[in-house]
Amino acid sequence: MRQFVIIGHDAPTTPEFSLDDLAGAAGRLDVLCRCVTSAFFLSHAIREDVRVHLILGDEYTVTFEGSDLRRLNPDERSTAALIRKALEEREEAIGHIPVETSPGVSLTRRGFEGTLDDVARRGTVVQLHEDGDPIVGVAPPSDPVFVLSDHHDFRDEEAALLADRADERVSLGPKALHADHSITVAHNYLDTAGFERY
Amino acid sequence: MRQFVIIGHDAPTTPEFSLDDLAGAAGRLDVLCRCVTSAFFLSHAIREDVRVHLILGDEYTVTFEGSDLRRLNPDERSTAALIRKALEEREEAIGHIPVETSPGVSLTRRGFEGTLDDVARRGTVVQLHEDGDPIVGVAPPSDPVFVLSDHHDFRDEEAALLADRADERVSLGPKALHADHSITVAHNYLDTAGFERY
Repeated sequence: MRQFVIIGHDAPTTPEFSLDDLAGAAGRLDVLCRCVTSAFFLSHAIREDVRVHLILGDEYTVTFEGSDLRRLNPDERSTAALIRKALEEREEAIGHIPVETSPGVSLTRRGFEGTLDDVARRGTVVQLHEDGDPIVGVAPPSDPVFVLSDHHDFRDEEAALLADRADERVSLGPKALHADHSITVAHNYLDTAGFERY
Repeated sequence: MRQFVIIGHDAPTTPEFSLDDLAGAAGRLDVLCRCVTSAFFLSHAIREDVRVHLILGDEYTVTFEGSDLRRLNPDERSTAALIRKALEEREEAIGHIPVETSPGVSLTRRGFEGTLDDVARRGTVVQLHEDGDPIVGVAPPSDPVFVLSDHHDFRDEEAALLADRADERVSLGPKALHADHSITVAHNYLDTAGFERY
C-alpha cells in the first residue's frame, strides 16, 4: 500500500465554494485535486493499492481509497465536486469515525496530527525534503507514506511533527516540485525500483 | 531546450467551448492543460528552457515558450483560457507564421506533421513506447523532444510518422501513464541524470 498525505492549508472546510474558481476562492483546491489524479490514475486503470488523505484546514480529512473508488475522473473540477460532496456531510463526521460520502471517498473530523499518527502506525513515513538523500539511491520501503504540502511550505509545527514521525528523509531531485508532480515522481521511483540506471 | 509535443485528438479548433466542461464538451482539454502545467511549473519557478506544442485537431498548434510566459497559472481552467484566447485569433494565423496571442503563447496553422518536422530539425525526437528501452538506463539527449498523445492512442498515421522521425524509443517504466504524468517523469529523469540508483 502506498499512501499520500497532502496538507491543504487554505482548503475549504465547508461546501460553500464554487467549482469555477478552484485556484482562487476555493483556496487552491486545484492543487489537491491534481494530487488525487497523480496518485490514482494510470493510462487505462486506477492504482488500487493507493490511499490518499487530503487535510482540509487542519480540521477535516478526506480519504480516497483506490480499491473502492468508482466515480473518480482525472480533471480538477470533478474531483473538487467529490470533495464538496464530502464536506456537505460534515455534520455526520463525529470524532474519528469516517463517513463514506461517495464510493471510496470518506470524511473524518481530524487534522494533520491525528491522520499522521494513524497512517504512521501502518507504514514507513517518508519526509520529502530538499536536503534529504536522493530518492533514486534509497531502497524503497514496502508501505511508504509520503507527506506533502500544498502551495505553501509546511508550517513550523507541521514540520516538527513530521520530523518526529518520519522514518526516512529523501529528496526527489535537485529541483523543488509541486506536490502533484512529486507524487508522480514517487510512483515512478517505486514502479522502476531495481531498474539499472544510466 | 526540452520540448514536448502533445496531440489533442478531440481538442477544439474554435473558441466556442466552455471553461466549465473541459473534460467533456471541450474534448478533454483538461489533459492538455495539465500537460502544460507539468512541463513548466517548478515549486517556485517556471522552467524557462522548455517549449510545449499542443496540436489541436491536427489543424492548429499552440506553442508555449517558457522564457516568455507571463500569465501562466497551474490550474486547468486558466490554461484553457489561454488556449481559447489563442483560438480567438485563428484568423490571423496564416500559413506557418505564428501569431503571439498572449505573452509566450502563439498559434500556428499547422498540424502534427508540420510541427514534428519543425522540432525534429532542432532536437532529438524521443518516442515514448511501452516496448522501448527503459529511460532510466538511457543517456539523456541534450535537446530532447518528447512526443505524446492525449487520452487516445496515437493514430496509425501518427505512429508511422513518429517512428520515422524518432531518434530513440524509450519507456518510462512498466506502467502506462497519462501524458502529463509522463512529462513529469521525463523531467525528473533529465533533472537527476547521473544520480546513483539503488
